[in-house]
Amino acid sequence: MSSIFGTLFRISTFGESHCKGVGVVIDGCPPNLSLTEDDIQPQLDRRRPGQSDVTTARDEKDKVSILSGTENGVTLGTPIALFVANRDQRPVDYGDMSSIPRPSHADYSYQMKYGIRASSGGGRSSARETIGRVAAGAIAEKILQERFGIEIVSWVKSVGTLSVDNLDLNNINRSSVDKSFVRCPDLQIAELMMEAIIDAKKNSDSLGGIVSCICRNVPAGWGEPVFDKIEAKLAQAMMSLPATKGFEIGSGFNGTRISGSEHNDMFLKKGAKLGTKSNNSGGVQGGISNGEPIIFSIAFKPPATIGKPQETVDFDGNSVILEAKGRHDPCVVPRAVPIVETMTALVLLDLALRQQAKLNPE
Amino acid sequence: MSSIFGTLFRISTFGESHCKGVGVVIDGCPPNLSLTEDDIQPQLDRRRPGQSDVTTARDEKDKVSILSGTENGVTLGTPIALFVANRDQRPVDYGDMSSIPRPSHADYSYQMKYGIRASSGGGRSSARETIGRVAAGAIAEKILQERFGIEIVSWVKSVGTLSVDNLDLNNINRSSVDKSFVRCPDLQIAELMMEAIIDAKKNSDSLGGIVSCICRNVPAGWGEPVFDKIEAKLAQAMMSLPATKGFEIGSGFNGTRISGSEHNDMFLKKGAKLGTKSNNSGGVQGGISNGEPIIFSIAFKPPATIGKPQETVDFDGNSVILEAKGRHDPCVVPRAVPIVETMTALVLLDLALRQQAKLNPE
Amino acid sequence: MSSIFGTLFRISTFGESHCKGVGVVIDGCPPNLSLTEDDIQPQLDRRRPGQSDVTTARDEKDKVSILSGTENGVTLGTPIALFVANRDQRPVDYGDMSSIPRPSHADYSYQMKYGIRASSGGGRSSARETIGRVAAGAIAEKILQERFGIEIVSWVKSVGTLSVDNLDLNNINRSSVDKSFVRCPDLQIAELMMEAIIDAKKNSDSLGGIVSCICRNVPAGWGEPVFDKIEAKLAQAMMSLPATKGFEIGSGFNGTRISGSEHNDMFLKKGAKLGTKSNNSGGVQGGISNGEPIIFSIAFKPPATIGKPQETVDFDGNSVILEAKGRHDPCVVPRAVPIVETMTALVLLDLALRQQAKLNPE
Amino acid sequence: MSSIFGTLFRISTFGESHCKGVGVVIDGCPPNLSLTEDDIQPQLDRRRPGQSDVTTARDEKDKVSILSGTENGVTLGTPIALFVANRDQRPVDYGDMSSIPRPSHADYSYQMKYGIRASSGGGRSSARETIGRVAAGAIAEKILQERFGIEIVSWVKSVGTLSVDNLDLNNINRSSVDKSFVRCPDLQIAELMMEAIIDAKKNSDSLGGIVSCICRNVPAGWGEPVFDKIEAKLAQAMMSLPATKGFEIGSGFNGTRISGSEHNDMFLKKGAKLGTKSNNSGGVQGGISNGEPIIFSIAFKPPATIGKPQETVDFDGNSVILEAKGRHDPCVVPRAVPIVETMTALVLLDLALRQQAKLNPE
Repeated sequence: MSSIFGTLFRISTFGESHCKGVGVVIDGCPPNLSLTEDDIQPQLDRRRPGQSDVTTARDEKDKVSILSGTENGVTLGTPIALFVANRDQRPVDYGDMSSIPRPSHADYSYQMKYGIRASSGGGRSSARETIGRVAAGAIAEKILQERFGIEIVSWVKSVGTLSVDNLDLNNINRSSVDKSFVRCPDLQIAELMMEAIIDAKKNSDSLGGIVSCICRNVPAGWGEPVFDKIEAKLAQAMMSLPATKGFEIGSGFNGTRISGSEHNDMFLKKGAKLGTKSNNSGGVQGGISNGEPIIFSIAFKPPATIGKPQETVDFDGNSVILEAKGRHDPCVVPRAVPIVETMTALVLLDLALRQQAKLNPE
Repeated sequence: MSSIFGTLFRISTFGESHCKGVGVVIDGCPPNLSLTEDDIQPQLDRRRPGQSDVTTARDEKDKVSILSGTENGVTLGTPIALFVANRDQRPVDYGDMSSIPRPSHADYSYQMKYGIRASSGGGRSSARETIGRVAAGAIAEKILQERFGIEIVSWVKSVGTLSVDNLDLNNINRSSVDKSFVRCPDLQIAELMMEAIIDAKKNSDSLGGIVSCICRNVPAGWGEPVFDKIEAKLAQAMMSLPATKGFEIGSGFNGTRISGSEHNDMFLKKGAKLGTKSNNSGGVQGGISNGEPIIFSIAFKPPATIGKPQETVDFDGNSVILEAKGRHDPCVVPRAVPIVETMTALVLLDLALRQQAKLNPE
Repeated sequence: MSSIFGTLFRISTFGESHCKGVGVVIDGCPPNLSLTEDDIQPQLDRRRPGQSDVTTARDEKDKVSILSGTENGVTLGTPIALFVANRDQRPVDYGDMSSIPRPSHADYSYQMKYGIRASSGGGRSSARETIGRVAAGAIAEKILQERFGIEIVSWVKSVGTLSVDNLDLNNINRSSVDKSFVRCPDLQIAELMMEAIIDAKKNSDSLGGIVSCICRNVPAGWGEPVFDKIEAKLAQAMMSLPATKGFEIGSGFNGTRISGSEHNDMFLKKGAKLGTKSNNSGGVQGGISNGEPIIFSIAFKPPATIGKPQETVDFDGNSVILEAKGRHDPCVVPRAVPIVETMTALVLLDLALRQQAKLNPE
Repeated sequence: MSSIFGTLFRISTFGESHCKGVGVVIDGCPPNLSLTEDDIQPQLDRRRPGQSDVTTARDEKDKVSILSGTENGVTLGTPIALFVANRDQRPVDYGDMSSIPRPSHADYSYQMKYGIRASSGGGRSSARETIGRVAAGAIAEKILQERFGIEIVSWVKSVGTLSVDNLDLNNINRSSVDKSFVRCPDLQIAELMMEAIIDAKKNSDSLGGIVSCICRNVPAGWGEPVFDKIEAKLAQAMMSLPATKGFEIGSGFNGTRISGSEHNDMFLKKGAKLGTKSNNSGGVQGGISNGEPIIFSIAFKPPATIGKPQETVDFDGNSVILEAKGRHDPCVVPRAVPIVETMTALVLLDLALRQQAKLNPE
């Protein structure tokens, strides 16, 4: 288990599906920051299931409480504990299902690792685990926004084979993203994505997709070569999210197909500073931010829980047909949008503090 | 700066282009392992520039010395320091070039971060930095091989637009990979790749590519959810390498385009254990190895240093034409192969030790 | 702020006097351990104020809840969150006192560090902070006891100038320690200590003392040279407790006064293993346990909060007379006993896991 | 093994008695600091054996080389590797001695931990291990001195039963300390200490002692509660040194014998800031520096290697008489002085960087 992340802004998350609740402790939050639950709840609400037909019908309220670390709405510099109660805290009897490792789920690998696993839900591998990250990341976002003017915006770039590729990245913001339930800012394609997801649901099947993210106003100089390069920490953060299978920054995999002379980002003057003409680097050079927008994408596989019958085996190797019951997300990418934003904030704020630690001669 | 990696098998790398040398200290190497320089040198030789026309013409010998941590060819359990001397230790006078940040290089971002940068070569952002990783990783490979029978094999999957997609992954090994200088096991495509690289060189240009990697015989149960999931640590490790722009595991970005019922890996009996029919998961479920081969790929951008004239600006914002002199790799992916293998070994061994730390009731 | 401790059994504590509560998240607890609140509550009860006349009259119930990480009374290997609610969660208006930094308290240094401090109580520097440590340490104790047979026993060695020096260390156990409220196993001296503490209370004054600790059955081989030697981690752990001013192990400061020939612990055969005749080393050689009992002591200063008028200055430097109101511990050492035991367990279990991580050839 | 220390200014030390050499890699040294070997060598020279009759007669030159991290005498912000070659790199055949664990040495515990140990010298438990710490700490001292005006001075407070207790702490500096070979600033007592050490040597015996340290001009606000309180990290650092058995800060163990009203440090105005009248706190309150001098002491046991015959057993449990040959320090405290100073600098600089990381609103 390694549920601690960060060097100076460190979070320790906890909780699984059917215990008393989920949450996080933040160690290293700067003091003297105004902070109440209202700063945190909005991203939890965006993450929450049950927001539309394209996400699960479960209606979890997910109200966050600040247990420590603030007084009169101001941070003390001490650890901030955040807690969200689970509404159903009883382990459910999944009957025979407990003897069948669900295909492409974590049942088998958790059992092999720990010799035990939560009897119901996904335990710690369930998407519910991300609540602690989102709550802590909402605080990180607030600090980055207030002290550096940083904007982090994620959106759904693709669902299955439906993809939006020609967005004007300058005009994407959270309100344009939230105009559709699928959180794709191109409303025409968003409509098609909605239909595709509803179709998948009808077919007891599921769909994957790609979430993209842009970070504006990140100062040049963040990132700690060589192992904590900014793209390395972003990649770790994103690939630690459930259901992720890929990460790319800037030109990404497509960038391998063009020549160096096409790929290089020429410098030019932008006001008092230097900037680049193109941004194939995705805002990062040598593992350090260069002042241009940081742009990256994450691949989310189709959810493993599907209603369709699956021919598999139980833990003893006996052939079985598995049909999942209950309500499931046919596509996670709309709800992944706030998760990606807040994880990004956790990475950036930690690197910001580490850069600030460098002593200046005067 | 963050040149320390790992939790229990921890490495601390050092060195840049024109100092006395480069190297690494390993803290936490298990005792009683037979170890001499001969165990380490082969991967350094595979990483070394000057192996063929498709890599740079510089002939660096890169002979490694074990400075501490062994006695009579056996590890003591104490820190192992490894050192490779630089042949040319004088900072070179690059003249006017020092006032021009090279496009898509780290000159500008290093200067913004540190307020100073190495006057010549790439300093710490140069590929020479990877020597410490490769040396330490060669030891990790040896341990993984001897104690778990693990095989890690990387190869060049694509160079520019030339790609090999239908390899029989069961038959790839280091000797089949090394049959061509480009380290692509499909010799016909390898030939085309060679030509493409030589063409790029003639044109004073450069090419990117994709390196893939397979890890066989990794036991089920490795990986530390939630932040140190096996794919999260692999992603961090790979994206910390110079020139990387993307990472994907298993089905990766393509996996987002198929439905859950197609993507799910059904379980079946494999001898005494369970395995999966397909391997879209890439050997990992819920962040934990499931016993199937771990398979992933990394995107390397085309090298930024090219001979072609580039219209850019100097640090003061004045327009300049930059033409790089000297010998440069027109394509880094062949040399990246051993780097990917050894970084993979560093990730896996650290997770192996962490898994072993879990107390068993017996 | 650094409220995270440990490498493999890592705890993250939170909470201060007047927030919603205090607690801890444990990351890395081994799976398959039977665990309920009943395993944790006894040490919290021993730590609790209001147990007798010699501790404060506040009656805090300090009931612990397990929020996550177990199912049906068994640990899952996932993070275990523990929580103890504060009974009075409103910041108290201390009136003028908030403008006066209490002598030998943390008011001034917290204000200088954070630019803010909790308006009442000691905030994070209050003894209430230790609840998270004790709760987590109670779990560590249970694991050490069940899996290694390790016994950790602390006792009060001195209060002010009253000291017990000739105890038979073989016969001390928790029940003999708890026979007196001051937790000194020599009941005659315990009686004198009680009187001294009651006298100090009457005089609106306070007393310090020394707590000693013995750890039996620790296997040889624990401790991670050079920086995480067993005595180094114990010293860090103990000196991180409120009000501690000194730590010594084995012969300690007195050991500096004798010659090497008197100090050396000669080896002899003890059953199938080697042991030592004397134990000036305190169970540790070269930073590694040698199989003999680990014995150490900690100095606790007299509590800073006293009723006696004190001539000091306010934050603006104006002379004031300060008289503390309210209920305070005149002597903390009796309540420090379970705190020392549980912190010791946290250190030992983490080192046990780290030692277990070392790969064995067969 | 855990040879890495620090959070932001991190050192990784390596090397034992008979390998190629000893050294350290510093990760996180601030850039733009002037630095050459001349800044490091003086403390290594003070640490070096063979300085007088009271230390060993071995004449090791211990010349340090900077292998990386600087260019033209200025730090780059990249890892700084420092190396000191061993003069005799061949493992010595200690003959029968290898079958006898030396009493109060680390032979037995290393063997139990690692299943192997260096065949000669103390391996990693030898005092030679401290060279890496001293070299790195000399750099930390320079930064603390230049950027904060911090002075760190250690001295020998006692040797055996000879102790100097009434020093004027304001007037101690390195030159007054170095006036005697034993590094006790009271020259009369220093003379007696010299005689005692020479006597012990004649008797083939050894002596322990206490080293004290004062840190002036440390700003208020350093130290990271709760686990990385300044006294907790100092205690860890000091207790990680070979041969240490105790640590105390401020009033220490004696402070437990007086009442709170005597022990409390009253505040008063000192220029524009607050200070305290007495300094029983030793410059630290609540784990955070308060601007007063930080004062602490460390107990060093008498060296275990003595010429006197010792009745002990070999690894198989057979009775033997052991007489150590060769040259040994009869008393380590004079050489411990620079080691304590440099370890202190490592602790303080790391905490300085961590405090600086806290974001300020403007």
